Amino acid sequence: MIEISIVGGSGYAGGELIRLLQKHPNIEIKNITSRQYDKTLINKVHPHIQGSDLIFEDLSPNKLDSDLVFTATPHGASMNIVPEILGSGAKVIDLSGDYRFRDINTYEKWYGMTHTSPFDSVYGLPEIYREEIKKSQLVANPGCFPTGAILANLPLSKEKLVENIVVDSKTGVSGGGVNPSPIFHYSNCADNVVPYKLISHRHGPEIQQELGAFSDVKVSFTPHLVPVIRGILTTSHSFLKEYDNPEDDKENIRKIYENQYKDEFFVKILDDGEIPTLNSVRGSNFAHIGGFEVDENGRLIVISAIDNLVKGASGQAIHNMNIMCGFKEETAIDGYGMKP
Amino acid sequence: MIEISIVGGSGYAGGELIRLLQKHPNIEIKNITSRQYDKTLINKVHPHIQGSDLIFEDLSPNKLDSDLVFTATPHGASMNIVPEILGSGAKVIDLSGDYRFRDINTYEKWYGMTHTSPFDSVYGLPEIYREEIKKSQLVANPGCFPTGAILANLPLSKEKLVENIVVDSKTGVSGGGVNPSPIFHYSNCADNVVPYKLISHRHGPEIQQELGAFSDVKVSFTPHLVPVIRGILTTSHSFLKEYDNPEDDKENIRKIYENQYKDEFFVKILDDGEIPTLNSVRGSNFAHIGGFEVDENGRLIVISAIDNLVKGASGQAIHNMNIMCGFKEETAIDGYGMKP
Amino acid sequence: MIEISIVGGSGYAGGELIRLLQKHPNIEIKNITSRQYDKTLINKVHPHIQGSDLIFEDLSPNKLDSDLVFTATPHGASMNIVPEILGSGAKVIDLSGDYRFRDINTYEKWYGMTHTSPFDSVYGLPEIYREEIKKSQLVANPGCFPTGAILANLPLSKEKLVENIVVDSKTGVSGGGVNPSPIFHYSNCADNVVPYKLISHRHGPEIQQELGAFSDVKVSFTPHLVPVIRGILTTSHSFLKEYDNPEDDKENIRKIYENQYKDEFFVKILDDGEIPTLNSVRGSNFAHIGGFEVDENGRLIVISAIDNLVKGASGQAIHNMNIMCGFKEETAIDGYGMKP
Amino acid sequence: MIEISIVGGSGYAGGELIRLLQKHPNIEIKNITSRQYDKTLINKVHPHIQGSDLIFEDLSPNKLDSDLVFTATPHGASMNIVPEILGSGAKVIDLSGDYRFRDINTYEKWYGMTHTSPFDSVYGLPEIYREEIKKSQLVANPGCFPTGAILANLPLSKEKLVENIVVDSKTGVSGGGVNPSPIFHYSNCADNVVPYKLISHRHGPEIQQELGAFSDVKVSFTPHLVPVIRGILTTSHSFLKEYDNPEDDKENIRKIYENQYKDEFFVKILDDGEIPTLNSVRGSNFAHIGGFEVDENGRLIVISAIDNLVKGASGQAIHNMNIMCGFKEETAIDGYGMKP
Repeated sequence: MIEISIVGGSGYAGGELIRLLQKHPNIEIKNITSRQYDKTLINKVHPHIQGSDLIFEDLSPNKLDSDLVFTATPHGASMNIVPEILGSGAKVIDLSGDYRFRDINTYEKWYGMTHTSPFDSVYGLPEIYREEIKKSQLVANPGCFPTGAILANLPLSKEKLVENIVVDSKTGVSGGGVNPSPIFHYSNCADNVVPYKLISHRHGPEIQQELGAFSDVKVSFTPHLVPVIRGILTTSHSFLKEYDNPEDDKENIRKIYENQYKDEFFVKILDDGEIPTLNSVRGSNFAHIGGFEVDENGRLIVISAIDNLVKGASGQAIHNMNIMCGFKEETAIDGYGMKP
Repeated sequence: MIEISIVGGSGYAGGELIRLLQKHPNIEIKNITSRQYDKTLINKVHPHIQGSDLIFEDLSPNKLDSDLVFTATPHGASMNIVPEILGSGAKVIDLSGDYRFRDINTYEKWYGMTHTSPFDSVYGLPEIYREEIKKSQLVANPGCFPTGAILANLPLSKEKLVENIVVDSKTGVSGGGVNPSPIFHYSNCADNVVPYKLISHRHGPEIQQELGAFSDVKVSFTPHLVPVIRGILTTSHSFLKEYDNPEDDKENIRKIYENQYKDEFFVKILDDGEIPTLNSVRGSNFAHIGGFEVDENGRLIVISAIDNLVKGASGQAIHNMNIMCGFKEETAIDGYGMKP
Repeated sequence: MIEISIVGGSGYAGGELIRLLQKHPNIEIKNITSRQYDKTLINKVHPHIQGSDLIFEDLSPNKLDSDLVFTATPHGASMNIVPEILGSGAKVIDLSGDYRFRDINTYEKWYGMTHTSPFDSVYGLPEIYREEIKKSQLVANPGCFPTGAILANLPLSKEKLVENIVVDSKTGVSGGGVNPSPIFHYSNCADNVVPYKLISHRHGPEIQQELGAFSDVKVSFTPHLVPVIRGILTTSHSFLKEYDNPEDDKENIRKIYENQYKDEFFVKILDDGEIPTLNSVRGSNFAHIGGFEVDENGRLIVISAIDNLVKGASGQAIHNMNIMCGFKEETAIDGYGMKP
Repeated sequence: MIEISIVGGSGYAGGELIRLLQKHPNIEIKNITSRQYDKTLINKVHPHIQGSDLIFEDLSPNKLDSDLVFTATPHGASMNIVPEILGSGAKVIDLSGDYRFRDINTYEKWYGMTHTSPFDSVYGLPEIYREEIKKSQLVANPGCFPTGAILANLPLSKEKLVENIVVDSKTGVSGGGVNPSPIFHYSNCADNVVPYKLISHRHGPEIQQELGAFSDVKVSFTPHLVPVIRGILTTSHSFLKEYDNPEDDKENIRKIYENQYKDEFFVKILDDGEIPTLNSVRGSNFAHIGGFEVDENGRLIVISAIDNLVKGASGQAIHNMNIMCGFKEETAIDGYGMKP
């Protein structure tokens, strides 16, 4: 049994951490911090969590006497508190973008701020960095788009099958967080599709960093907001360097994917003919991957589906905790999706 | 550890039973039947359940060598198979309307068919009939609208506070089941509200039976289809027989509700100022009840929210199983709702 | 040809006025004001209006040299500008609540502010006050909920058929306007139903004022937010003072409604068996009314459906303009709804 | 004034033709046919059209004594009736796929049927074939996806800027028509994104035919179903054959588009910084085109938005009629979109 704390518990990632950790037999939630909701029962902010006596507290990082701390704080805020928490000896899983980049210049260029406390973190995608995560004190939990995009394209980069990848992602609105703004106003985003940051989303360089680590593939990334609460559906388009015929190529590529993920509990390669959809992973920590069709132009299409708040945030954070702490990897996050 | 079977496992109630029972340590799923999908892996129908090797079988009732059977079959079909299952000694929880009515004439009038196999069942609302459920071999799992409506109004009838209750319910579309039809066609029910069966829904007499058992209250019930996947929001309007002033009446009524449900794990009376909403109970077995406002005309308003597929169907069925089998009542159904 | 201006043109009501007036052959839009968007092309705010060279201006009321002015300003703001516009000789149609109440005390109680400039306005529901509107210089355009609720219940009050009316309304989110807030945040209101202001919505006294003008009927009003962009579905529940049998009562009541509205172009009494739905009136100025079922408890149910931004706001305002200016009443607002 | 008929008037395209033609001063609707709804008032099928006395009739093609006939019939059905209507001397605008292909073999391969009555039709995209449409007796109205995709990419093909185009389209559910099926069942497609026919949608070869007519560009097309009622958002990804730097390329490409469409009333090139969205064109015949961003990999992104039932079907059909009959092109279809 370890003690954990959640810094920034009033947002969606915080709410999901609380919901999922309820079922975790090896941890106890010690503190949930929130500046805005200090001394407020969490059910005032998370009305689905009735019956808990947990309370938000406005605690400074050095008051979190915990074994592990989830920092669900905004980009730019994490870097101000993580060093102090690490200094106390606690492990940290940071859900912001602050510790995801190996090249600090990339971070500073895309996030538009100076990084005040670089640290030797591990990028927390267990399907790539499991061994490093085990030994790390600071894990940078991946971004939601990168989680779906990297899993969908990792074998293509490793096997050097393509030169360019176009990632066309469709995201649910919860990815934008709890704060109201015109783009997330119901009357604006219901019954609508909104492409945004066509070539300038900061998850682009994050995907590039990870896929580019295995070959010199170049990633072009464009996100779209769709009227869905949760989920990211990633459509990956790429042209095969060498292609023979659609059917054989498809079979070969499927085998490569099945082999890549054969030991990964949370990645499911769907059967031929099945296509990933968001409602199959809603609320779950699973990533569904499928497609693998090759058309007569040599264009390959791969689809992945994740829940942005679970596999794309809090569920993956718990997965990382389980690895860091030696718990069974699936603990508390093995539930199936909620369909319908 | 007991063995259970699910008859009619390809619908939404079947899918939810599988999803929820995955977490139940005291049961093993022995058979899941489906005529249509015989010998098909369940993930072909329930694509959110990847990684299970469960398979649908077209089994006759006498082949289910189980300790307990959930019959998630349509109205009219259950009565044809339940007697044979009961004859094998198994306990049965029937999710159809076939065994909910104490007066067989009411059933035959509202369901338009002859009942071929009446049996001494218990109405499976644990908040009323827990003791009877413990001893029953056949539990009739309540309808989705009645679950929300009875819980919202039970204290009013018990305390004889009102003569007439108007139940104005708003239901998600999953209540209509998996079979496509024009009323559930996306382009018809999205961005729309559809009142239906204004005075003729067969859940009306079911609500009347249960609320009328405690006083001579008369229930008027009208359902509306709203563009929501899951959930039933029940708005109960009634005029108090005696009323003093809005604030005092409200306080008195709140106390009556709190007292009625103080030992019920799955019924949460919300704090003053909080109003039940569907997304607070989505995916959970909780019923949230709140409101209790009295206006200057003496009209009382009470609101309840449930997930129609969980508390209104499969979750409540598991609750009944837990009671019938002596398991801890909350087992496998104590998860919080999924918000957002 | 008259010149009109729109004060407060950047909101939804303003956008609908522009969209609908595009087709009006008898008017010319002279000014559209907005403090926030001064000197901005309207398509920056209303991107559906491409190709127009209209521009927002931050104009004071005395600069609007128009024959008629629509004030689409917030409650409390209208009263500060309407007197000056009236002083210039222009007719005014005010879309706020400032001039809807005959008793200034009711306004001040429910809107929580002192009325600084009472004026002898006409309540702009043409189906009741057509003759008065013709002669009025200031028309108070009705609220969205009141429009649907009054039309659904007017014959009941006129004929003194009932004592109490419960109005259970379901509204689309656009009724909340363009400003983001948590309640209108997509992730909060999608896939959800949210009852609010259970007994305290200020449209309650507005409905009471109008229905109470014909008999001493008492109205209890409760709104619900549903995941719909546009539309208000009003469900009216009332107990008949005298009732005979459901079928005869239903027929009598239907006849009363058909007679009441037989000359009203914008009110459609649906055929027996048809029930109003929101998508049948989406984008149109029509009100659909139907139901008229009477159950065995003597409860009558009447349903109305309107588009809150058209019949419940801008369309009705144009209807009032047409009446005030002697144009054909249907001009520019006779389009059918958009279904699907 | 001409007389027109609609064959197959009970579907969404039929409903939109009726809704839009209501405002057309130069035509009179003579017949609306439907086999299923013979002798039924159209408001029983199109409840938004109240107050019309139009009635469905089960008429054979030779009974349509009209000047122009819209055939809103399924693929495979049109070819059986169009020859007879043409034989009567009437002009025909066919909304099915039967007459869209210049190479009959392509049709037969992708539609899986033998074409029994080829005819020299014109592909009814006015922005390409206006002059041919003027002289044609049979216009094949374009498919919904092709309309959005061709407009978004026409300048790229004409100017030979790219070799491959990936068209990633997001469509509303109304594109699937009025007939219920599991894929369009609300509980399946709400809160979901469903990629389908990843490389095998028959609108692919239609796009290829039209874009390939101007250069040897190769098109890869993949559609996605999103929880939207109306609209197709097309995201076009292509790699520029020659590129210099993102900013200059973007400006050059924007100019090419502006020049291509400068005289087209229904195509709006959005200002720099504005991105097309579905709710800006909802209910309108406009196509919005924007984006033109070029990333550092030389990938160009162009976005188009149309209403699939208007610009992608019935509105474009009326546009074609206006051209064929010498009416003003915008007649009856110049309304702005409905936002929100």
